[in-house]
Amino acid sequence: MEVKLHEFEKIYGDANKAAEARRQYLEKTIGVRLENIGKTIIDLNTVVGRNIENVIGAVQIPVGVAGPLLVRGDYANGYFYVPLATTEGALVASVNRGAKFVTESGGVRVKVLKDGMARAPLFRLPSLIDAVEFVEWVTQHFDDLKKAAESTTRHGRLKEVQPFVVGNYVWLRLVFSTGDAMGMNMATIASEAVAKYVQQHFPKARLVALSGNMCVDKKANAVNFILGRGKTVTAEAVVKREVLERLGITAEDVHEVNVRKNLIGSALAHSYGFNAHFANIVAAIFIATGQDVAQVVESSMGITSTEPRDEGLYISVFLPSLEVGTVGGGTGLPTQREALALLGVAGSGNPPGTNALKFAEIIAATVLAGELNLLIALARNELASAHQRLGRAK
Amino acid sequence: MEVKLHEFEKIYGDANKAAEARRQYLEKTIGVRLENIGKTIIDLNTVVGRNIENVIGAVQIPVGVAGPLLVRGDYANGYFYVPLATTEGALVASVNRGAKFVTESGGVRVKVLKDGMARAPLFRLPSLIDAVEFVEWVTQHFDDLKKAAESTTRHGRLKEVQPFVVGNYVWLRLVFSTGDAMGMNMATIASEAVAKYVQQHFPKARLVALSGNMCVDKKANAVNFILGRGKTVTAEAVVKREVLERLGITAEDVHEVNVRKNLIGSALAHSYGFNAHFANIVAAIFIATGQDVAQVVESSMGITSTEPRDEGLYISVFLPSLEVGTVGGGTGLPTQREALALLGVAGSGNPPGTNALKFAEIIAATVLAGELNLLIALARNELASAHQRLGRAK
Amino acid sequence: MEVKLHEFEKIYGDANKAAEARRQYLEKTIGVRLENIGKTIIDLNTVVGRNIENVIGAVQIPVGVAGPLLVRGDYANGYFYVPLATTEGALVASVNRGAKFVTESGGVRVKVLKDGMARAPLFRLPSLIDAVEFVEWVTQHFDDLKKAAESTTRHGRLKEVQPFVVGNYVWLRLVFSTGDAMGMNMATIASEAVAKYVQQHFPKARLVALSGNMCVDKKANAVNFILGRGKTVTAEAVVKREVLERLGITAEDVHEVNVRKNLIGSALAHSYGFNAHFANIVAAIFIATGQDVAQVVESSMGITSTEPRDEGLYISVFLPSLEVGTVGGGTGLPTQREALALLGVAGSGNPPGTNALKFAEIIAATVLAGELNLLIALARNELASAHQRLGRAK
Amino acid sequence: MEVKLHEFEKIYGDANKAAEARRQYLEKTIGVRLENIGKTIIDLNTVVGRNIENVIGAVQIPVGVAGPLLVRGDYANGYFYVPLATTEGALVASVNRGAKFVTESGGVRVKVLKDGMARAPLFRLPSLIDAVEFVEWVTQHFDDLKKAAESTTRHGRLKEVQPFVVGNYVWLRLVFSTGDAMGMNMATIASEAVAKYVQQHFPKARLVALSGNMCVDKKANAVNFILGRGKTVTAEAVVKREVLERLGITAEDVHEVNVRKNLIGSALAHSYGFNAHFANIVAAIFIATGQDVAQVVESSMGITSTEPRDEGLYISVFLPSLEVGTVGGGTGLPTQREALALLGVAGSGNPPGTNALKFAEIIAATVLAGELNLLIALARNELASAHQRLGRAK
Repeated sequence: MEVKLHEFEKIYGDANKAAEARRQYLEKTIGVRLENIGKTIIDLNTVVGRNIENVIGAVQIPVGVAGPLLVRGDYANGYFYVPLATTEGALVASVNRGAKFVTESGGVRVKVLKDGMARAPLFRLPSLIDAVEFVEWVTQHFDDLKKAAESTTRHGRLKEVQPFVVGNYVWLRLVFSTGDAMGMNMATIASEAVAKYVQQHFPKARLVALSGNMCVDKKANAVNFILGRGKTVTAEAVVKREVLERLGITAEDVHEVNVRKNLIGSALAHSYGFNAHFANIVAAIFIATGQDVAQVVESSMGITSTEPRDEGLYISVFLPSLEVGTVGGGTGLPTQREALALLGVAGSGNPPGTNALKFAEIIAATVLAGELNLLIALARNELASAHQRLGRAK
Repeated sequence: MEVKLHEFEKIYGDANKAAEARRQYLEKTIGVRLENIGKTIIDLNTVVGRNIENVIGAVQIPVGVAGPLLVRGDYANGYFYVPLATTEGALVASVNRGAKFVTESGGVRVKVLKDGMARAPLFRLPSLIDAVEFVEWVTQHFDDLKKAAESTTRHGRLKEVQPFVVGNYVWLRLVFSTGDAMGMNMATIASEAVAKYVQQHFPKARLVALSGNMCVDKKANAVNFILGRGKTVTAEAVVKREVLERLGITAEDVHEVNVRKNLIGSALAHSYGFNAHFANIVAAIFIATGQDVAQVVESSMGITSTEPRDEGLYISVFLPSLEVGTVGGGTGLPTQREALALLGVAGSGNPPGTNALKFAEIIAATVLAGELNLLIALARNELASAHQRLGRAK
Repeated sequence: MEVKLHEFEKIYGDANKAAEARRQYLEKTIGVRLENIGKTIIDLNTVVGRNIENVIGAVQIPVGVAGPLLVRGDYANGYFYVPLATTEGALVASVNRGAKFVTESGGVRVKVLKDGMARAPLFRLPSLIDAVEFVEWVTQHFDDLKKAAESTTRHGRLKEVQPFVVGNYVWLRLVFSTGDAMGMNMATIASEAVAKYVQQHFPKARLVALSGNMCVDKKANAVNFILGRGKTVTAEAVVKREVLERLGITAEDVHEVNVRKNLIGSALAHSYGFNAHFANIVAAIFIATGQDVAQVVESSMGITSTEPRDEGLYISVFLPSLEVGTVGGGTGLPTQREALALLGVAGSGNPPGTNALKFAEIIAATVLAGELNLLIALARNELASAHQRLGRAK
Repeated sequence: MEVKLHEFEKIYGDANKAAEARRQYLEKTIGVRLENIGKTIIDLNTVVGRNIENVIGAVQIPVGVAGPLLVRGDYANGYFYVPLATTEGALVASVNRGAKFVTESGGVRVKVLKDGMARAPLFRLPSLIDAVEFVEWVTQHFDDLKKAAESTTRHGRLKEVQPFVVGNYVWLRLVFSTGDAMGMNMATIASEAVAKYVQQHFPKARLVALSGNMCVDKKANAVNFILGRGKTVTAEAVVKREVLERLGITAEDVHEVNVRKNLIGSALAHSYGFNAHFANIVAAIFIATGQDVAQVVESSMGITSTEPRDEGLYISVFLPSLEVGTVGGGTGLPTQREALALLGVAGSGNPPGTNALKFAEIIAATVLAGELNLLIALARNELASAHQRLGRAK
C-alpha cells in the first residue's frame, strides 16, 4: 500500500505516462487488463489538474443523435440533431420518434423563465437577535457583498441574496448570473469571498459551511423546484390530431396516462418528478456534452402537463432547475466539444450567456420529445415490447 | 429533412459505416467536425440494437481511481481502487483523500439491507369496490402472477407485490430479485407478462400504464426512500481521533457541519439528500462502469449521520435505492467492463447476484469516503480554495 | 409568580372550585374577565387528570350539521347528519351542498383499506453490524415482543413490526390494532413495554426516544402517506350529469379544476395535500367529536381524483392516515359524545372496532362531499362571492 | 328526506329556535339526545351567517393554562398564561413544565421574520408565450392590481405578486398584509378583484380556480415552508445547565434526542415536521382562541434545533407558516375572546396588526416550551409513564 498513485504525474513528468504507469501498477496488483481504458484520444495532460486526478485513461460511451427536432425558442430557432450518450437501448429511438411527432406538428416552443446559479453559505450567530440583525446588515451591504463576490470573477454577477433564518442560523442563498458557464465553480469561489467579507465586517457571523445545502446542489429539493437554479425552462408543443390518429390513439388517451401516471402516481410516491423520464434525456445530453452529470439529480425534476384540444394534444414540460453550461467543466474535451458544436453552442456565446440559454432551450425541447414518445408508447401499451426488441427498459 | 438517419444501418449494412455516414451527413448539413466522436474503440456493431440507435460514435470521459479503500462487507472484503469517470476536477482527489482517512482508521463496514427491483403497472377499475376486489384477487393469485412473471426471465424472481389503491386505480408494485443485473429491463418485461395475465383473468382491470410512477424509476421519491429499490445499503466508519487531529479539527467540528448542513439545511430545502454530495460519487462510478446513469437521481438519495465518539468520529451513510448491475446495460462495453473488473465484479457472480451485491457495497463505502472528505473540507473551510486550485466546484 | 396553579386541585379538593380559583387569580393578575370560559356544562372533576390540567373552564364552538348524506360503506350504511364544529362561515353550507349532490346521485361508496396505529421507538446500536443483528433478533422474537406489548392493553394487538436501519440506528415501527380507540395512548404504553423487553434481552440496543418520528404523529409525512396510519380510507361517488347541468357546468369543467389545482398546483407546491380542503372537513368533525385535533395534520393528507364519465363526474378521495376513535380521548365528554351518537358511533362497537371503522367511513364520505362542492364552486367561479356572503374564506 | 334544515332560520325567524328545532328533528329522526350540545352560552343569532350554518348548538372543550411563560419579543414582552383547549391529558402539564424551565432560565426570545397572507389564483393561457407575456404584464400593472385588490378591503394591502409558470398555466401568488386578521377571507375577496381586473384587461388569461393550491391553505407544503405564509416566526431559549442537572440529564442528552428523532427520524419519514409535537401546542391554542383550526396543518410545520453550550442547552423553534388573527373568524365568540384577552391580544391592536404579531410571538414561545419539555421527557425516558398517569399519548 505504499505506492502513492497521486504522485505519478510528478514522478513521470507527463500525465499520459503517469496514467500508463498507474494502469500497469493496477494491472499487476489487481490482476486485470486496462488496455481499453488506456486507448483514449484525450491528451491527459490537458485534463489532469482541471477535470480529473489519478487518471488512468477514459471510458467510452456510444453517442447517437435524435432529430431533426424543430425548436422555436428565443435563442434556439431551427432544426437540431441532439447528441445523446447512453448505453440504454431504445432511448435514442424513443427521443427520435418523439422529435418526429413534434417537428411535423410545428415544433417545440421554449422559454427560459429564470436564470441564476446559487450557492448558500451557512453562518452561525450567537442568537436569533443577532441572526435578524445580520440579515438586515446583509441587505444594507448588498453592494459591498456584490463587489467582494465579483472581484473573483470575470463573468459572474451577484444578482440576489435570499436569506433564510432558523433560530441562530442564517443561510445566504447567493444567486449569480454566470454567463455561458454552468457556474458552480464561479459561484463557490465568489461565495467564499462574500463569506470572508462577512466574517471581517460582521464578525459575530461564523461560517459553518460554505455550502449549507440550501443551494441546492445535486439533491432533489423544493428550493430549486420553487425558486429555480440554473435555468428554469418550460416548453410546449401541440401534436396534431392526425399524427395521433396514425398511431391509433387520441389526445384523450395520452392525457389519461399523463394524469394517472405522472400526476397521481407521482403524488402517491411523493416525487419531485411529475414526469415519465426527464432524467433519461437530461442524463444522455449531459454525458455527451461534458456537463456535471451528478446535477442530473435536480436538473431532471419537473412536471409534464397535457391538454386534449381540438387540434390535437397540447403537451408542456417544466424544468425548474436545469444546470448547464457551454464553457468550463468537461465542455472543452475533444468529443464533448464536438457534441456541443453539433448544436451550435460550443464555447462562449455572442453576447456571452446566449449559448447556455440556447443550449437550455434545446434540452427542454428534447425532453419534451422524449416525454411525449414515452407517453404515447404507454398509451399504446408498447413499452415492454420496445424494450424486448431493443434491449432496454426505461 | 428527407434523409432517414435511423435507416443507415440497413442501407450501409454495417454499424460502423452507418455511423460514419451519419457523421458525414451531419458535418455537411450543420457545418461541424465530428472526427473525435468517430475515433472510438467500440465496434459499433456490438452496440447498435442493444445500447444505442442512430449512433455516430462515442464520447470519451476521463477516468481516475481512488484508493486503496478498505471495505469490510459481506461480499466485498479487502482493498479496492475505485474507478471514477468525471470531468469535474477535485472529485477524484476528494474521494481519494477520504479513502485514505477511513482506510487508515480500519476501513468501512457495509451491509446491504434489502435487494429488489420494482416496476409498478397501473390499472383502472370501474369502481373502488372492484379495486379492493382486485387487490384481494392479486393476493390470492400471487403464485400465478409469479409464474407469469418468471416465464419471461431466467434470473428474475417475483418476490413481492405491493398494492396501492387510490379510488378506482390500483398500482401493483412488483418487486423482483434480478441476480447480477440492475434489472429494469427484466422487471419491465416480466411486469408486462403479469399485466397480460391480469387482463385475461381479471378483465375488469384495464392497464393504464405499464409503469405508473410508483416504481419509481429516475425520479427522487419517498416510496424508494422508505421501501427501497435496487440495493438498500448502509455503511459506517470510525475515523480515528489522531487522523482528525492531524487535520487540525475535532470530531465535534465535523459533527456540527453534518447536523447544520446535511440535516437542518436539507430539512429547510425539503430535500431527499440529507448528505453533502452522494451524487458526485454515484455518478462518477455509474459512468465508469456502464450503469444506467439517469438512475443517479434516486440512487444518490440518502442520509449521512455522524457521532463524536471517544475514539474519533463515527460516520454512516444510508442509500435506500442504489440501482446497480454487473451484467446487462453498458456493463459489457470495452472500457466499462475493465472498470468493473478493476473492482473484481465484471459479469455474473458466483453464485449469481453476488457480484452486484459486492459492487453495491463498494459503492456505498466509496460514497462514505467522499462524503467524509467533503465534511472535513467544510469543517476546515477549504472548499473554495480546493476548487480554485483544482478547477472545480462540488 | 409564586402561586402554583397546578396545585389548586389539591388545595381546593375539587376541580370546579380549583378552576374558579384559577380564573379569579388570572382575572386579578391579568385584569381580564373569564366568566364565559367558566360557564361550562362539563363537570371538571371528570376531565382533570384525564383530559386536561390547570383547567379554567371550557371553550364553546358552534356545531352545525351537514346532511342527509348517503353513505354506502361496509360499516356505515344509510343516511347521516354529520356534526361539524367550526367558526368559519360557509363551511357547513359547503359540505351540506356537496352532500346533497352526492346523495341524490346515489351516495358515496367507501372502503377502509388498512387499519393500524403506529409508534416507532428509536434505538441506538454500537455499530451497523449490531443494528442488522438487532433487526434479525426482532424478527425472530416477534412473538415475545407481541406478548410484552399486549400485556399492557386489553384491546391492543401488535400486528406488525416495520424496522428501519440508518447506520447504527434502528427504528421499530410497531403497528397495533386498537379497537375503537384511536390508540396513540395504547400504542405508546405498549411500545414502552416492547422497549423494556428489548433493553433487557438485547442490551446492546439503547433506547434513544420512545417516539423516533417514524410513527409519524402530528406531522405531514411520507411514511403514513405510503404505509398508512390509523385508517387508510378511500371513497367515491358518481355525480349525475343532470346535477351538474343544473349548476351550469360539465364533468369536464370540474375535472379540469381538479387536474390543474389539486394535482399540478399541489405538485408545484410539493404538498401532501393533492386536494382542495380535506383539512376543513376533518378538523370540523374532529373538534365536534372529541378527536385529537392535532392529528388533523396527517389525517387530512390525501388525493382527490376525478374522471368525466358518460353518466357524469366520477370523483374519489383517498385519505391514507385518518386517525380516529369512538372511545378514549375527548369522545366521552358531554357534547362530544352526543356528536358521536348522532352518527351512531358513540362508545364501543359491536364487535369492538366496528364503531371506529364506521366513523372513518362517514368521515371519508363527508370529505368527498365537501371536496366536491368546493371543486364545483371553483368551476363556477363562485368562491369569493360565497365567502363574501357568508363571511369566510376556505 | 324532505325537511330542509338549512331553511329553519327563515322558518323560525330566530337562530336559537332554529337550532332547537333542528335538534328536535334529529333527536326524533336518529333517536339520540342532543341536550348538551343545546346548552351553550352562545347566542346563535350572532354566529349564523358568519361562523356557521345549520347550527344545532355548540361543543364544549376544556381549557387549561400554561404559565407563567416569560416571553421577550418585539410585541410580547412579559409573563403570559397561555390558554390551551384540548382533551388530551398531559398536554397542558407538559407545556406548563416547559414554560417553567425556560422562564427560570431567562425566558424565550422571539422574532417574527415575515408577515403576509397568500392566495394564488390560477390562470390558463393559450400558450406559454402568452403565459410569459402575462407575467410581464402583471409585473408592469402591479399598481393596478394593487388598486383593484385594495378596493375590496380596509386593512388589506397587496404586498407582492409571486408568479409561477408551468407550460401555459400561471399562478399569481398574491401576498397581502392583513392587519390583525388572519386574512384568508380578505385575501380571497381581494384576489377575486384582481382576477376580475385581469380578465377584463388581459382577456387571454382565463381563471381556472381562484385558489390554485400554490397559496397554500391547509395542506403541508414546501411553498409556505420556504416563502412563508401568515407569520414566519422563530424563537429561542437557553435552558440553564442547573435546570437540566436537577432533572438528571445534560444538554448533550437532549441534543442527541433532537438530532436522532427530530432531524434524522423526520428525514427518513420525509416529513414537514422536524420537531416533536408543534401541532399539539398550535392546535390547543387555535381551538381556545377561535382560529381557523384546519390551518394547524401548515401552521405546525417547522424545525427544532438544539446546541449544547457551556451555559446549558440552546434550543430554537422555527415556524414558517403560522396563520393567526385576533379579529375575524371565531375570535369574537364569547369564550374565545376571553382566551385572547388573557394574552392581551383581543381585537385590533394599536397600531393595527400588532395584536396579531404579539399573538404569533406568544404562540412560538409556547411551542418552544412544549417542545423542550417533550424532548426532556424523551431524554429521561418518561414518555409512556406520563401518559399512563395522565391518560394520554402525545
